Amino acid sequence: LSLTKTEIKYLTSLHNKKQRLREKRFLVEGTRLLEEALSAGYLPLTVFCCPSEIDSRGEKLIDGFRQVRVETKTVSSRECKLLTSTVSSPGIVALFPIRESNLSWQLREKPQRVLVCDKVGDPGNLGTLIRSAAAFRFGLVITTGGSAEVTNPKVIRASMGGFFRVPVVVDVPETETANLLKQSKYSLYQADIKGSDVGTAMPITGRIALIVGSETAGSGKILGGQADYRIRIPISDKVESLNAAVAGSILMFWFGSKEEAKK
Amino acid sequence: LSLTKTEIKYLTSLHNKKQRLREKRFLVEGTRLLEEALSAGYLPLTVFCCPSEIDSRGEKLIDGFRQVRVETKTVSSRECKLLTSTVSSPGIVALFPIRESNLSWQLREKPQRVLVCDKVGDPGNLGTLIRSAAAFRFGLVITTGGSAEVTNPKVIRASMGGFFRVPVVVDVPETETANLLKQSKYSLYQADIKGSDVGTAMPITGRIALIVGSETAGSGKILGGQADYRIRIPISDKVESLNAAVAGSILMFWFGSKEEAKK
Repeated sequence: LSLTKTEIKYLTSLHNKKQRLREKRFLVEGTRLLEEALSAGYLPLTVFCCPSEIDSRGEKLIDGFRQVRVETKTVSSRECKLLTSTVSSPGIVALFPIRESNLSWQLREKPQRVLVCDKVGDPGNLGTLIRSAAAFRFGLVITTGGSAEVTNPKVIRASMGGFFRVPVVVDVPETETANLLKQSKYSLYQADIKGSDVGTAMPITGRIALIVGSETAGSGKILGGQADYRIRIPISDKVESLNAAVAGSILMFWFGSKEEAKK
Repeated sequence: LSLTKTEIKYLTSLHNKKQRLREKRFLVEGTRLLEEALSAGYLPLTVFCCPSEIDSRGEKLIDGFRQVRVETKTVSSRECKLLTSTVSSPGIVALFPIRESNLSWQLREKPQRVLVCDKVGDPGNLGTLIRSAAAFRFGLVITTGGSAEVTNPKVIRASMGGFFRVPVVVDVPETETANLLKQSKYSLYQADIKGSDVGTAMPITGRIALIVGSETAGSGKILGGQADYRIRIPISDKVESLNAAVAGSILMFWFGSKEEAKK
């Protein structure tokens, strides 16, 4: 019923970013996140669970995975703990494939709204932005090189299942991002504290791409130079800036409310 | 030029929450945060700096503190590291008084907009909410019991100086919060995923208090029961909720934009 040494060695190696990217696999832990994955139809290859550590909600989840023919394996409490990135054992951990994706291919789907995370290095901020993108019905998230690695457990946790609901294309070079978006007729809006206030005359028609940078200086130069509009959230002049995930989320909310108003 | 054993023992004891609350003192580290404190006029009692570890920006900051007659002390690199909560030495650390505050007293100032953080336990979320409150010109932040401790270094860091700019009254019991706000003629708006969409008919006149809860179930019952309005941010029905700091910040932005529209 338990794992072999080789299996454990392989699975725990996925705590390492390089190994995740090489193997195209990552681990996700905990009932809540895995419920989101199941409900979104982003299915794991294998689910590992420790029966003594899950409650009836966890049992229901395991049943759900079995119904869609996902392999489930029983593991010991000790094994379960080895597979997790946190201190406490979540009772349930699953092995997922990293979905290969490509920007040109994704843009053929013509998502109406796209979020570009330009060098967002903080995993919590990146995850929160992905969560908000799913909430505000953005159809695609792009990360440029220098952003946090998207299958990092901190990103997945902060995304609260958003990662399973919105396609994320990672590590796209800035110039390629700008070129492909422009070819597909997107208007590029760069979040920029030196831009024009949202709400001032600014056309919002057709497909839009919102570019959000990190808070550290120096980011956003390449993509920013390609932007059609630079927009800012009006804040007190005594305050330097908002948190990057907050600023991006407010702008996603704002684009959504503009679209509602047009209907 | 250096600290005595007793001084070091006292200062390092402030890494502990109980000790901070007993002594009414807390430490803040790093050039950027201390620049904010100086600029906001929230002055420390003593600034400790390690000359070999600060750059010209740090030197300018030290000069700034001296000009307003704040005591500065030179410490060794090792001492500086002892005073910090992070791994790397920030070169500069300051000892601040916790400002005693009281809700009745603060409400006499009649701030137009008040943010209530109801059991926001995550220090990063609480700090981010304080940062956004300062940015959106809220005049007061209240935390209820069960919220993160506001002088926790993680809160101060996430607030990015917001803590120095907006008064924060901590640990107010929920019933007292509701009663005092109502006596002072505030309308209470509870952020609630089961509430009415923002933008639907809902009067926004006079003084408002926005209540933001944590994301865990069970919070917000007492204050929520006292709210005049329950408001929600419209999101995809496939997504359960937004991050608490994001939701609170979007609502603060929204109240601000409503006020602008009235002008």
